[in-house]
Amino acid sequence: MEKYPPQLTALIEIFKKLPGVGTKSAERFAFHLLSWSEENLEKMGDVIRSTKTYLRCCPECGCLADPSGCLFCQRSARSICVVAHPKDVFAIEKTHEYRGLYHVLGGHLSPLEGRGPDHLSISKLKERVGAHHIQEVVIALDSTLEGDATALYLKEQLENDTLEIFRLAFGLPMGSSLDYVDGGTLARAFRGRLRY
Amino acid sequence: MEKYPPQLTALIEIFKKLPGVGTKSAERFAFHLLSWSEENLEKMGDVIRSTKTYLRCCPECGCLADPSGCLFCQRSARSICVVAHPKDVFAIEKTHEYRGLYHVLGGHLSPLEGRGPDHLSISKLKERVGAHHIQEVVIALDSTLEGDATALYLKEQLENDTLEIFRLAFGLPMGSSLDYVDGGTLARAFRGRLRY
Repeated sequence: MEKYPPQLTALIEIFKKLPGVGTKSAERFAFHLLSWSEENLEKMGDVIRSTKTYLRCCPECGCLADPSGCLFCQRSARSICVVAHPKDVFAIEKTHEYRGLYHVLGGHLSPLEGRGPDHLSISKLKERVGAHHIQEVVIALDSTLEGDATALYLKEQLENDTLEIFRLAFGLPMGSSLDYVDGGTLARAFRGRLRY
Repeated sequence: MEKYPPQLTALIEIFKKLPGVGTKSAERFAFHLLSWSEENLEKMGDVIRSTKTYLRCCPECGCLADPSGCLFCQRSARSICVVAHPKDVFAIEKTHEYRGLYHVLGGHLSPLEGRGPDHLSISKLKERVGAHHIQEVVIALDSTLEGDATALYLKEQLENDTLEIFRLAFGLPMGSSLDYVDGGTLARAFRGRLRY
């Protein structure tokens, strides 16, 4: 009996589908569940089962929507902030720096993974920029190779005389020591130095 | 709207109960689920819900039991191997070195976490050692402070004239280089050196 019983294997396989979870972690999770009460297991199962009943992505902006509708589309604003994933919206909301509209692309351009412009919500973005008379676009994508390429592509696609297009600033992360900051970041921080 | 919708918070809270999963990972898991199909979510929910229907711990040995009964208790043997958790049983089975009975303690002694002998399945172990006319006990616990203390305690509790009590060998892990082995392990390996 060196193989796990089928129900245990099923549990492990299902946990392995979570991001960053390999066989070892999935086994740990599965064995941990065995120590849970039946009540807790049913609760967990139900919450997962009903995810889509309560949470969907807004067909308009791609942000999270609950049954009462999109949480962000009701805002009236002339700004739109472009992010890659629904999660990023909450990170930006937490900063209290922005109260405008959002647009979720659904990822970055990635030729390696075969993700071109058609796989992202770009034509919808253009449509919304027109429909909402947007004056300011803030591109808030990762500062990675793919994020930068996507930002550049968006800028080229959106550029016109009336629209101001922004991206997030680069520089030292808060609380960082120069010793530990990589050269690329330091160069960007230096180039973008601020007057005291 | 910087707070997540309640269903999302519920998902995150539930993932946080898994071992080694903090808020960040739980959020990652929860947002990942949003991209799953309804069918997959229902499947995952159902598998988790029905864990206890298909998998229980054998009241006798503490190993995993499926609906047809305990996977290990049917063996007739004069050996019993004592482990801390049900998972350890499968690790030992995989070595093909042992085909005897098992006994799951349910953890290690840990005064710091208030886990004394009464919290572990020790009296049951003594009872089974007698009932099965056991001649050999192999204590297969972690080589940590808590594992060692528990092993010593078990040895003292079980010791008698007819019972042979073993523990796992200490030494170099397979494929290890002396450079990378810690001093304690090396000392144990040296002390337990084998004749060529």
